[in-house]
Amino acid sequence: MSLKTLLNKKSRRILGLMSGTSCDGLDMAVVDIHGSGRNTRFEIVATGHKAYTDRQKSVLLQLVSNQKAPLHLVSKVNFWLPRKWAEAIASFLNKNCLSATEIDAIGSHGQTVYHQSQPETVAGRKICSTLQIGDPSVLAQLTGITVVGDFRTADMALGGQGAPLVPYFDWLYYSRFKKNTLALNIGGISNITYIPADGDFSKVTALDCGPGNLLLDQAVQRMYEMPFDRNGNIAARGKLSTRLLNYLIKNDTFIHQLPPRSTGREHYGSTFIIKTLKRAVRLRLMEPDIMHTLSYYTVYAIHDAVNRFIKTEGPIELLSVGGGGAHNKFLMKMLAEVFSPAEVQTAGRTGIDEDYKEAICFAVLAHETLNGMPSNVPQVTGATRPAILGKICQGG
Amino acid sequence: MSLKTLLNKKSRRILGLMSGTSCDGLDMAVVDIHGSGRNTRFEIVATGHKAYTDRQKSVLLQLVSNQKAPLHLVSKVNFWLPRKWAEAIASFLNKNCLSATEIDAIGSHGQTVYHQSQPETVAGRKICSTLQIGDPSVLAQLTGITVVGDFRTADMALGGQGAPLVPYFDWLYYSRFKKNTLALNIGGISNITYIPADGDFSKVTALDCGPGNLLLDQAVQRMYEMPFDRNGNIAARGKLSTRLLNYLIKNDTFIHQLPPRSTGREHYGSTFIIKTLKRAVRLRLMEPDIMHTLSYYTVYAIHDAVNRFIKTEGPIELLSVGGGGAHNKFLMKMLAEVFSPAEVQTAGRTGIDEDYKEAICFAVLAHETLNGMPSNVPQVTGATRPAILGKICQGG
Repeated sequence: MSLKTLLNKKSRRILGLMSGTSCDGLDMAVVDIHGSGRNTRFEIVATGHKAYTDRQKSVLLQLVSNQKAPLHLVSKVNFWLPRKWAEAIASFLNKNCLSATEIDAIGSHGQTVYHQSQPETVAGRKICSTLQIGDPSVLAQLTGITVVGDFRTADMALGGQGAPLVPYFDWLYYSRFKKNTLALNIGGISNITYIPADGDFSKVTALDCGPGNLLLDQAVQRMYEMPFDRNGNIAARGKLSTRLLNYLIKNDTFIHQLPPRSTGREHYGSTFIIKTLKRAVRLRLMEPDIMHTLSYYTVYAIHDAVNRFIKTEGPIELLSVGGGGAHNKFLMKMLAEVFSPAEVQTAGRTGIDEDYKEAICFAVLAHETLNGMPSNVPQVTGATRPAILGKICQGG
Repeated sequence: MSLKTLLNKKSRRILGLMSGTSCDGLDMAVVDIHGSGRNTRFEIVATGHKAYTDRQKSVLLQLVSNQKAPLHLVSKVNFWLPRKWAEAIASFLNKNCLSATEIDAIGSHGQTVYHQSQPETVAGRKICSTLQIGDPSVLAQLTGITVVGDFRTADMALGGQGAPLVPYFDWLYYSRFKKNTLALNIGGISNITYIPADGDFSKVTALDCGPGNLLLDQAVQRMYEMPFDRNGNIAARGKLSTRLLNYLIKNDTFIHQLPPRSTGREHYGSTFIIKTLKRAVRLRLMEPDIMHTLSYYTVYAIHDAVNRFIKTEGPIELLSVGGGGAHNKFLMKMLAEVFSPAEVQTAGRTGIDEDYKEAICFAVLAHETLNGMPSNVPQVTGATRPAILGKICQGG
């Protein structure tokens, strides 16, 4: 299909791709999308995940969080990764009885290997930058499908942080409910978007709250050698240690920062958890009590961020929870308590498969780019103006 | 202007940009372009060059030909360079009484920092790759103009060498003359495109011939401490040393390689010239004789490549010479002798400003991408099929 024809389409079937910083695999979502902005409507056709092999993961980890990785490797992996994706896509489409010719376009986030929203000096000039690899032009040629890729760059060129990009999607989707809504995502960290009942785009706000699953996962891995605390069962058996809670509130520098702010594994990683567990041992806490308190703290940080930084018009009516944390029943129960009387639901219950939200999001952002519509939220990222995000690479 | 409107235009005013591997500066050409393929017609509106400062050049040289440059520098310079370009563009347009709103699009080659057309292994897989920095999405946001950038990637994704890309432009331009034409470019190295009189695209061939100005410039710099031999004056005063000529023919491994082949500074750089000058000293040659013989060898390599590898239909009627070498009168005289009875002219005389040919070329390639037309030449690059090159980044 020519690009001209593609731009003229009102409805498009788009494959969204997300390859997260954990380098565990590729999320895929085929979405039928119609309209634009608040009038966008979509239907999820198929979702799938292709795990990277250990060998593939180790290639990616040589680049992710290694600022000194050599240029030749950046160039090679930039070409190699789309080959893996093209294979994963072919098998995913096949499994779902879909053909590549039915897909109008691909929206590809890419693999972030560098993201620096604090200015660094180059030739006497302060520069922020972001680098996503998995070249969209290579992917377009290998799949024969037009690709829209690399969404963060344009926002950052305008002085924005290049993140978060999900708030546009949250606004577009949740404004239909006509409720004061919080769209919460509990991935490694937690972040939240506020969508006012009147759907006014200029009132949309978003920020990173604090830890998501990062503290819980690391703690249970160290104490129980389990990958995660299923349903939050262990945490539910424990009780709150106010002393550990107060220690966390006092010593976690991130939750006291003013927005715009963003955090990640560099803050809530091994150093943070080791220090926290040492303190818990000194307080002679039982393992379930530690898990309970870390869960409580996770919810505390979310609630605190909302209270302090999100100016709502009237009370919150709906809290929709996406990301892996939505599967944690104990977290969900506590969220329902602190945000009462708001209705607290998993994103899945509100229509968005919580495990594929980002893949769905980048399908929708690609659709907007093909509509010629901006899709950053300047008041959230700090960009000087709205921007049409992404690079369009013709595949046919 | 919306992308839809831009795609629907039949004529476009496009700014072509080229930032060469020598890192000396940015070439700019504003070109009014109409039609597509062999029916393309264009007019050059303005040309200009912005030299990089020593500081800027040293930043770029940290990446160009440094395979181990760190990832963080790649990311930062990828954002920094478009800032410099945007400033250069603003001042260039201003000087030519042009406004940014008159420019429909920018065609940006980017700055090549890695180009490996020989497969290298990544996770057990053979991968060729190329990396151009100077992000087109950043440039689009900073200028407010839609940018088509990064042309080599798509061809290489299809198994091509990603180079040369100029042959499509040569075909598109020179086929109007309805003569068996050789479009020769004498930059650092020499390369040539053959366009048959009937304009049949499938008969277009191209290849790298051998040294262009590289040997001459390095020799005159070492022997005379002059940047180059103006008009070839020194060479014209000397005489041919058949012994040095035979030494070069015998010892230069590149000219004996079969196509597809490509060469550059890595072959004809300091090691090559030092060995050659040592031999010349042993042969007790005078400096002008060395320059004369190196010039003769440069022409020999071109003529030899044409004789052996370019299957023409009937005799060559036109030899159009672009690149800095077109200013070397002695080279031009020798070319006229060996290619007699073909008409030998500078590209400028045939309508293409020889100093801005590449900038003009990338304006035209951007136009074709917006037309939805492929612009690689598969039989030249080795790609499995034609590809629509480049990434479209909306600026408005």
